[in-house]
Amino acid sequence: MQLEMICTGEEVLSGQIVDTNAAWFANAMMELGIELQFRCTVGDRMDDLMRVFTERSHHADVILVNGGLGPTSDDLCCEAIARAAGVALVEHSGWRQHLQDWFKRRKREMPASNLKQCLLPQGAILVDNPQGSAPGFRIKFNRAWLFFTPGVPAEFKPMVQEQFIPFIRGAFGPGAATQLYKLLTFGHGESALAERLGPLTPPAGITLGYRPSLPYVEIKIFARGESASAALPAYLDTLRAALGEVIVSENQGDLAALVHDLLIQKGRTLSLAESCTGGMLSSLLVEHPGSSAYLQQAVVCYSKAAKQKLLGVSAATLEIHGAVSAQCALEMCSGARALLDSDFALAVTGIAGPDGGGEDKPVGTVAVALSDRTERWVQVVALAQRSRGAVRVMSAALALDMLRRRLLEQEVFATYSFIPAQEQRRERHH
Amino acid sequence: MQLEMICTGEEVLSGQIVDTNAAWFANAMMELGIELQFRCTVGDRMDDLMRVFTERSHHADVILVNGGLGPTSDDLCCEAIARAAGVALVEHSGWRQHLQDWFKRRKREMPASNLKQCLLPQGAILVDNPQGSAPGFRIKFNRAWLFFTPGVPAEFKPMVQEQFIPFIRGAFGPGAATQLYKLLTFGHGESALAERLGPLTPPAGITLGYRPSLPYVEIKIFARGESASAALPAYLDTLRAALGEVIVSENQGDLAALVHDLLIQKGRTLSLAESCTGGMLSSLLVEHPGSSAYLQQAVVCYSKAAKQKLLGVSAATLEIHGAVSAQCALEMCSGARALLDSDFALAVTGIAGPDGGGEDKPVGTVAVALSDRTERWVQVVALAQRSRGAVRVMSAALALDMLRRRLLEQEVFATYSFIPAQEQRRERHH
Repeated sequence: MQLEMICTGEEVLSGQIVDTNAAWFANAMMELGIELQFRCTVGDRMDDLMRVFTERSHHADVILVNGGLGPTSDDLCCEAIARAAGVALVEHSGWRQHLQDWFKRRKREMPASNLKQCLLPQGAILVDNPQGSAPGFRIKFNRAWLFFTPGVPAEFKPMVQEQFIPFIRGAFGPGAATQLYKLLTFGHGESALAERLGPLTPPAGITLGYRPSLPYVEIKIFARGESASAALPAYLDTLRAALGEVIVSENQGDLAALVHDLLIQKGRTLSLAESCTGGMLSSLLVEHPGSSAYLQQAVVCYSKAAKQKLLGVSAATLEIHGAVSAQCALEMCSGARALLDSDFALAVTGIAGPDGGGEDKPVGTVAVALSDRTERWVQVVALAQRSRGAVRVMSAALALDMLRRRLLEQEVFATYSFIPAQEQRRERHH
Repeated sequence: MQLEMICTGEEVLSGQIVDTNAAWFANAMMELGIELQFRCTVGDRMDDLMRVFTERSHHADVILVNGGLGPTSDDLCCEAIARAAGVALVEHSGWRQHLQDWFKRRKREMPASNLKQCLLPQGAILVDNPQGSAPGFRIKFNRAWLFFTPGVPAEFKPMVQEQFIPFIRGAFGPGAATQLYKLLTFGHGESALAERLGPLTPPAGITLGYRPSLPYVEIKIFARGESASAALPAYLDTLRAALGEVIVSENQGDLAALVHDLLIQKGRTLSLAESCTGGMLSSLLVEHPGSSAYLQQAVVCYSKAAKQKLLGVSAATLEIHGAVSAQCALEMCSGARALLDSDFALAVTGIAGPDGGGEDKPVGTVAVALSDRTERWVQVVALAQRSRGAVRVMSAALALDMLRRRLLEQEVFATYSFIPAQEQRRERHH
């Protein structure tokens, strides 16, 4: 079955609203093992609508059309498909009765504009809309069934679930079993990952996709059909062997979510000292409900005075090593941990740019420290990212990864091809 | 000029990621007075890509293609357009040199997969990408110029702004005289705004659009054509009179940007004490380069112990009033200001949910305090938003708005129809 989607509406095409219906629909289909093949978006112009309905009707078996069924003058879908198919618009007396009853129950006069919503193309089959005044409908045109749905998400989603899915299941049988498996990686670029995985030709029916989304690259593994699904577990093992510690999580949350869960599971507490990340690290954890169980405090010590007064960084350290140094990160970290005697502390200090970089310490130089009750670790890295936002995002993720690895009792320092370390130190507390 | 967009990528088509590039691009064009006519989305399949490039190349003058330029095996755009146009792929020696130098500077080996990114279709013109390893390019095919851009937003957006826009301006002249004027509002819902502005029929050629984007609602005013542009200033005055202090900024940045600029302009310093916002307030400010000029520190005092030990909140206050109370916010605020004797301090403490709410103080109850050297203000509000993220975003914005109003020497407490205040207090320091 070739499934396509046509999104209509000036406000979607012009970017005034982001088309979340489209992503939602594709996702809902994916979960049924049905892949959307093609999607297009057109505005509310009669010619464009007629052209795209006709054109796609030759290629697809089923086309879900979204939007353009409302009562106003820019809602043209119904008329456009009738014109394209060369049929008349006829009144659906059942829907007219339904609307009249609806307004009567609410003791309101039905506006004349709603009468338009009782007109359907000749031969179309009405699709009930319990949530609104615009009915959906479906009509066969050339090769395709076009299935028209309202744009309002609260009307669209139930119509897909309660009417569209049963329709395609009935007409085309259940979809092929498609499985989606996700590996989240951190610290390695898309090309470095591709190099490791390139030689491992996947079994027939399995495809790989890379989705870089700072600070991660997600690897998506699609297995289409039964033999591919059967081959998936062994192939995943091959991938795991090739990637090793590059994989941060499988079908799970990001670093903040992992650290959040681990700290709660283990009943440990955390303090943070943030300079260049400026509260981002804290905010990533606080996003998750229940973070108050472990996060004791975070100090955003943006000024040198704050580093000294709140965290006890020594004037000599700032003088000799500077605020962006392994020594300063260590003192920030120890200071933060001591404040409320937390089990762990993380500290980040770096040059996020665009200004403030020098030859010795260019923009992207960041020192990240982790401390627990017995030991502390620090590394200074050179982030290649150039934007202020990217440096902060990568720094925060690196700090979380160090803590995650410690919580899992792994070596704290990983080798990240994308984040060269200039200095690494591990020491017992004095 | 017929302008279209082709979005590529399995993850966009399948709804794994919402296509924000598409909305951003259409918006950016709209601001230039150029309307996007058509957009379609295809996966990473060679046949689909070749078919859609060929098909659309007969209809459009310019097609912006997004995604599919990466180094991995599912990045097929370059090969697909070459095959569709019947030309060979040839190595761009300049880009190869550029990539080799880039890796050399970072003391890293260039992965072989990056070599793929040096291949361009014969006759294509390379478009520089200062942010990443994939070059953009443009190529004439049938009626259309196809302009290929990377999918990573941080690479895509500058390429559109610095390369695509100058290209279409040069090739097609400036767009029709469309002006876009933006009013940023805070604290009022879309329907409340529409109610105020509904009776004010705009002059011919001027249209209004509302774009809610938490915590703001942006009002967009489009003036198309010369007579509409001439009528715009008087119409804006009408809107200003109707909206009053509801308007936070005109054609400018958001609250964090405004506060950032004002603090730098006035040479004043700031400290923060954050509980439920958990570093978000700090992070919003630190996003802007130069924040170190005024932000002395932020204390994320998530635990009661942190509130007491770091900020000097009294045990009695926590006992009698609780951590989410006007009194606690005031003490947090004064404590934060005193730490480094800042000119201003803000404090936020609230119940972000989903748990922790009670009958007396439901989820969404937030206390926000502002202190300067002589006075302090606090208000307790009831936020209607139900998600944890929304409560945090609204709280942070409310705090910033209080400080913005103080910096502009306005009354600190505004009336927000969307954020009912339960308690407001203003007092001189003891």
